[in-house]
Amino acid sequence: MNGADLLCDTLLANGVEVCFANPGTSEMHFVAALDRKPELRCVLGMFEGVVTGAADGYARMTGKPAATLLHTGPGLANGLANLHNARRAGTPVVNVVGDHASYHLVHDAPLTSDIEGLARPMSAWVGRASGPADVSARAAEAIAAATGPEPGVATLILPADAAWTDTPPQEVARARPAAPARATAATVEATAAALRENRAETLLMLGGASLSEEGLRLAGAIAEATGAGLIAQQSNARMARGQGRVAIDRVPYPMPEALARLKDTRRLILCGAKSPVGFFAYPNLPSTPLPEGCEVSTLAGPGEDALAALADLAQALGLPAGAAPKIESREKPALPQGALTPDTIAATVGALLPEGAIVCDESVTSGRDFFRLTHAAAPHDFLQLTGGAIGLGLPMSVGAAVACPDRKVVTLQADGSGMYTVQALWTMARERLDTLVIVFSNRSYRILHGELKSVGAGSPGRNARSMLDLDDPALDWVSMARGMGVEAARAETAESFTDLFRAALGRKGPFLIEALI
Amino acid sequence: MNGADLLCDTLLANGVEVCFANPGTSEMHFVAALDRKPELRCVLGMFEGVVTGAADGYARMTGKPAATLLHTGPGLANGLANLHNARRAGTPVVNVVGDHASYHLVHDAPLTSDIEGLARPMSAWVGRASGPADVSARAAEAIAAATGPEPGVATLILPADAAWTDTPPQEVARARPAAPARATAATVEATAAALRENRAETLLMLGGASLSEEGLRLAGAIAEATGAGLIAQQSNARMARGQGRVAIDRVPYPMPEALARLKDTRRLILCGAKSPVGFFAYPNLPSTPLPEGCEVSTLAGPGEDALAALADLAQALGLPAGAAPKIESREKPALPQGALTPDTIAATVGALLPEGAIVCDESVTSGRDFFRLTHAAAPHDFLQLTGGAIGLGLPMSVGAAVACPDRKVVTLQADGSGMYTVQALWTMARERLDTLVIVFSNRSYRILHGELKSVGAGSPGRNARSMLDLDDPALDWVSMARGMGVEAARAETAESFTDLFRAALGRKGPFLIEALI
Repeated sequence: MNGADLLCDTLLANGVEVCFANPGTSEMHFVAALDRKPELRCVLGMFEGVVTGAADGYARMTGKPAATLLHTGPGLANGLANLHNARRAGTPVVNVVGDHASYHLVHDAPLTSDIEGLARPMSAWVGRASGPADVSARAAEAIAAATGPEPGVATLILPADAAWTDTPPQEVARARPAAPARATAATVEATAAALRENRAETLLMLGGASLSEEGLRLAGAIAEATGAGLIAQQSNARMARGQGRVAIDRVPYPMPEALARLKDTRRLILCGAKSPVGFFAYPNLPSTPLPEGCEVSTLAGPGEDALAALADLAQALGLPAGAAPKIESREKPALPQGALTPDTIAATVGALLPEGAIVCDESVTSGRDFFRLTHAAAPHDFLQLTGGAIGLGLPMSVGAAVACPDRKVVTLQADGSGMYTVQALWTMARERLDTLVIVFSNRSYRILHGELKSVGAGSPGRNARSMLDLDDPALDWVSMARGMGVEAARAETAESFTDLFRAALGRKGPFLIEALI
Repeated sequence: MNGADLLCDTLLANGVEVCFANPGTSEMHFVAALDRKPELRCVLGMFEGVVTGAADGYARMTGKPAATLLHTGPGLANGLANLHNARRAGTPVVNVVGDHASYHLVHDAPLTSDIEGLARPMSAWVGRASGPADVSARAAEAIAAATGPEPGVATLILPADAAWTDTPPQEVARARPAAPARATAATVEATAAALRENRAETLLMLGGASLSEEGLRLAGAIAEATGAGLIAQQSNARMARGQGRVAIDRVPYPMPEALARLKDTRRLILCGAKSPVGFFAYPNLPSTPLPEGCEVSTLAGPGEDALAALADLAQALGLPAGAAPKIESREKPALPQGALTPDTIAATVGALLPEGAIVCDESVTSGRDFFRLTHAAAPHDFLQLTGGAIGLGLPMSVGAAVACPDRKVVTLQADGSGMYTVQALWTMARERLDTLVIVFSNRSYRILHGELKSVGAGSPGRNARSMLDLDDPALDWVSMARGMGVEAARAETAESFTDLFRAALGRKGPFLIEALI
């Protein structure tokens, strides 16, 4: 038994059952150890951003971490953007990074770099095994740090000699993550008092577990009883949506719309959410959309149990256990005809989405109106880009599909951001994942065209167009998908999109629709 | 005039004429400023690894830095792996990273991260503009730091408000990089003395500028006069090769071969090279391939002028100015027939490569024997993966082709590593670059199969195969290339490869050959 075997055993003993991987030479003993543990499922990504984004999607759907396997500093670097998104989503990830044998570092071999330094900005915990004897303890620490009470990315650095050196059999360490804290009675009472007195000008802002079906039921009952408003934060790891569930909107992305939406709010109560802030600053706009004088209080903050806090609050307000708000029955959108647009795509999805689907959203500008047209869709989960680091959509779909093999994953993917981690399509084909990818092909970084205009730069000239337009040459997503083993077709009208979407829902396995909008 | 205009002016005034870019919202004022400066050429990469790898390839061929344009911490993170390669190559890069407006950082908006922390491991210099008033000074510092005396990556962080805030016109700052130091007379004398006494057991190890045509001529003359051996370090930014040039081999990658190659060396003299070290450590092999007792001395170290040192050494040895070694005339390989293998591909390239071609090599295992079959090729430059962070081949080719529009760029690209930054194909099509990409399609991480075997893991089982084999599904490079606008074809025999290679040499613009080996 060597350190790598111990790491596998420790992962398995603590419920880590999937390893999204892109190994290199320094990880070969870990690969050999994984090979002796077929019960730990290994899924290859052909680029590390696929690996880390998949780990994020997996954990959002299972609530428990997957392991990654990355190759030294540059392999970690390639995975950092999606670890940034995982960090912003509060996703648990056990991020395993191989390194040179410890005694080799002094020679500064070509692949040597400061792994701790690279890991720290995106990690809640960074540790290094010093040898086979402490691999299990460090791995258990990493799992505990990833899991809670505030889940996040825990980076465990595994030197090659810690992996390959033999060690006597030992009992593997158990991770003992702390449970999330319960909101204090005083906080719950103060929140209840505020809700009783303030009513229409009070907004309860939800995030985290309060956006689960149960959380929305509680929040909906509280809102109905008190007259408070409900809203979700702008970016969320996971939301329960669709027919029979409390419909809730998010703080809009464009700052002028966010300002308009929140202008009458006098009190904001945060439950698993962060106080709203502009995604970017703009020369003539404030950094946050809250009106001056708005009081902000926190019912459940980071590391606290947002769902339990809502239950306690409902009780403090005197609501009966199991209280549920009246949920209006909504009509599904009619199947659209004519031009293919983001709205007609949303209407088709809203009409046909199967129950239990998982919608992974990285549609950027094309998805801004998606919610309005899909509140009446069959019940589904909605997973979102949380950290603004584009290139999450396809990898997150891989992870969600590995986590939930019996549920259809529908990916709303902008073309520009889809290119960042396009290699994820290959993993979908290799693992026969039940993913239906819709590419919104507008052949530009449309969001940046809008931003350039708002900068007052006038019509883009040659250099600006060379950085914002993607139409020369136009990407052919059908060819790219087929090149990676994924069946694909192109839609140019609402009718053809509906036909393709319906046909793809009727089969298992990956399929890509390039929607020319 | 705002800070962004000043940055453009400073870049141009200091000879930075190309910006490889992937901007985002926080960079829109810089994009608008670039739009007012059409003489600064902007080249879009659809992923930041393309951007940074292209900047590396560009500078290797021009000897001067390009600018990059990256979007906040995650955009930088995506570019770090190829910045790592640039760092190892000693390539000058002015790495511009946009950030939020300074006053917005306190709000910890989704895209906020520790940019300095991310940049430091791969950068020789990291700085941040504090406002428009110091943009020009900081940019000049960055250019100076990137340029020398030891070239490297200089990361300049540009907050959005430093870019957008107006500032009175000011004279732009001039970069004043220090020149590389000259080896001392004592060092040159000591080296000459060692060469006079030690002869056959002495090896002169070349790197950097000593691998230019002129450096090789000098080194070849010194070797001929003294009986010393010549070798290049394992990974080099750029080497002059082919007919009429001193043929030189590199330290082999596999440690057993490196040990065999160097076993009789009693004295190693480094000129622009690092003392050899194993790419990785292995349980039963030493970390460096030098035999015990081998004396290592340095003629020209980091920050010193390796070419001038060779000239001084030649003079100290009494060689006449312009002394050149006898260079044997070599026969080009015959055009091969039959099975398509790495060797038959190398033979075709060796036979047909046009004069002045730039060969960009990321062929990994498939290129191990390339040198033997191409010493007789027409004179060319050979650019290599220097830092082991795979995914450089295609981006480096983009940069080399932008730098040298009149020279054919031939890329030797392994399939597994090619997938890391496959988006570079699109930039080749967009910019009509004269790149001929050969993909060695072995449908596996073959190097890792070898490494797994050397670990003693026996035959790979399900988990190992799932992480090392790429054949399920097989990648279709022809489809992927066409999907990004690059013409492509597949070769399955040596004859069909030769036909395609010859045809591709006869045309301008990007072309990809998928070589099934």
